[in-house]
Amino acid sequence: MPQLRKDPIIGRWVIIATERAKRPKDFKIIDSSPPEKECPFCFGKEDRTPPEVYSIKDNEGKWKVRVVPSIKPFLAGNHGLWKKGKGPYDLMNGLGKHEVVVECPQHIGNMADLEVENIRDVFFTYEERIKEIEKDENIKYVLVFKNYSWDAGGGRVKHARSQIIATPVNLKRVKEELEGAKFYFDYHERCVFCDMIRQELSQKERLVLDEDGFVAVVPFAPRFPFEVWVLPKEHSPDFYATPYDSLYPLANVVKKVLMRIKNLLNDPPYNYVIHTAPFRRPHRGYWSTIEEDFHWHIEIIPRLTKVAGFEWGTGFYICPSLPEEAAKFLRET
Amino acid sequence: MPQLRKDPIIGRWVIIATERAKRPKDFKIIDSSPPEKECPFCFGKEDRTPPEVYSIKDNEGKWKVRVVPSIKPFLAGNHGLWKKGKGPYDLMNGLGKHEVVVECPQHIGNMADLEVENIRDVFFTYEERIKEIEKDENIKYVLVFKNYSWDAGGGRVKHARSQIIATPVNLKRVKEELEGAKFYFDYHERCVFCDMIRQELSQKERLVLDEDGFVAVVPFAPRFPFEVWVLPKEHSPDFYATPYDSLYPLANVVKKVLMRIKNLLNDPPYNYVIHTAPFRRPHRGYWSTIEEDFHWHIEIIPRLTKVAGFEWGTGFYICPSLPEEAAKFLRET
Repeated sequence: MPQLRKDPIIGRWVIIATERAKRPKDFKIIDSSPPEKECPFCFGKEDRTPPEVYSIKDNEGKWKVRVVPSIKPFLAGNHGLWKKGKGPYDLMNGLGKHEVVVECPQHIGNMADLEVENIRDVFFTYEERIKEIEKDENIKYVLVFKNYSWDAGGGRVKHARSQIIATPVNLKRVKEELEGAKFYFDYHERCVFCDMIRQELSQKERLVLDEDGFVAVVPFAPRFPFEVWVLPKEHSPDFYATPYDSLYPLANVVKKVLMRIKNLLNDPPYNYVIHTAPFRRPHRGYWSTIEEDFHWHIEIIPRLTKVAGFEWGTGFYICPSLPEEAAKFLRET
Repeated sequence: MPQLRKDPIIGRWVIIATERAKRPKDFKIIDSSPPEKECPFCFGKEDRTPPEVYSIKDNEGKWKVRVVPSIKPFLAGNHGLWKKGKGPYDLMNGLGKHEVVVECPQHIGNMADLEVENIRDVFFTYEERIKEIEKDENIKYVLVFKNYSWDAGGGRVKHARSQIIATPVNLKRVKEELEGAKFYFDYHERCVFCDMIRQELSQKERLVLDEDGFVAVVPFAPRFPFEVWVLPKEHSPDFYATPYDSLYPLANVVKKVLMRIKNLLNDPPYNYVIHTAPFRRPHRGYWSTIEEDFHWHIEIIPRLTKVAGFEWGTGFYICPSLPEEAAKFLRET
């Protein structure tokens, strides 16, 4: 059973994934990409994964997008949340969900290479799963993310997929964003993300795309070279409230960004993460202004640099490229 | 000239290392360790580095440990700190220092393989440099860290060295620790690190070493498998105030931990970071209880896992090994 443990100093929750617990010899430093195993995510191999919990089907009943539980879940179970202290420490059981979204039936690795309609279906699938998971009162947050390719944690099999993790705690970085956004709102009575979008649209030097209600920008203070954020121009705290008609334009912008990253940077590994507002649980009174101050967005991070180690220990990042130059390359490619 | 830019949402400073600014084609995804170039850090190759700013010499005048400025500094310069706004954004120039500590004259890669006396000299060198850098009133924090081996950001040359970065801002993670420690102290009137050490010494299941005034423990909620912290048992906020006589026992504990990590995990890449209290500048009134609530320590992080991407985006870590098991392996190896 996975555990959630809280760092007693800074209060960060960590998943101790006991289901994956490893002995020293299990850790191998693999420098090169290992050979691909037979793909369990292709059409026709459905018996290789746990039974699906959701799918979108075509007119002939064939699945186009499919969601299955992870075979090695980081978090699992939906009842009996316990929290306890142990000396000065806090822990709780690793209750939650961990699902895999198989993005296409054919063996394609990079979401950049999927059709826009296909990506729209993937985003619609995210929405449907988030709405379903929200019904579980123990869950505070749903995180949707993608690890593309081995060096981004994407595993051995090159079949496009993303992951959904539902947690009983709010995640540190998301909490910081919520707090930062609230702090800004309390002073300015404006959404910091909306202000940022206005600034980028008028200044244009970090703008990558501005199409059909969505913008793609390189942030002013990115952590990683060629980091790109995609945001809806209209204020909205919740990703899953995006109207169906807006998902195609969103998919179009995301595909273009991913395709440009692929072409410009030689098909690099990348991650993306959707930051959306946490569920508003009636018994949690805080985040009183969240509807007005938080703004969902997707953070896309090409993994281009060997991580200089001290970022881990300090939260201090060094970005070896000028954001304005990265945006220019991404705009003009 | 490097810049420091502040993320407008969560307030994290990022170094934009313009001296290293790269075009897309400069980013190559290198999966395997590249061949080692001729070592510029060995004895006799002093002309290959910038002039040294500090060294420890033996009786014959040969250097044993040597500090040189980085040839590609992340931060540089010591006068003319400017801060300015740009629309909703904040930036300042990348003032500070970036030095390389060459830990030995002979071509040895892993600090684990150095003599205890040699490691003691390295720690003494850290102290001397921090004391020197403190004289610059613009500097708020000095970070000492090590990237060992290519996959930990250690570069191509396998000659033991560490880095010192002096910054005009406090680092996010360090600030969180300071705030967390203060929060705990305000409630309990005790240092959280001292409480943690007491707990680990009595419970013993996460204890790795307890020798001559220093402990090595696997944290209760580690971010990484086989992460180890080394702490002085006696409360002390500042690393550089460690008495000379205590540096040998410290070096002894650190060497043992590094050697066990090397043997147990097949010489993995690793990072370490020294967390010490920031300089107390008279015009900065906060951290009023820092002498009592902060406790310096070294965080050692073997780089065993391909980083699952979503940690970057969430600050939420998944540790695939049980801390108590990791401690047991490290204790008994």
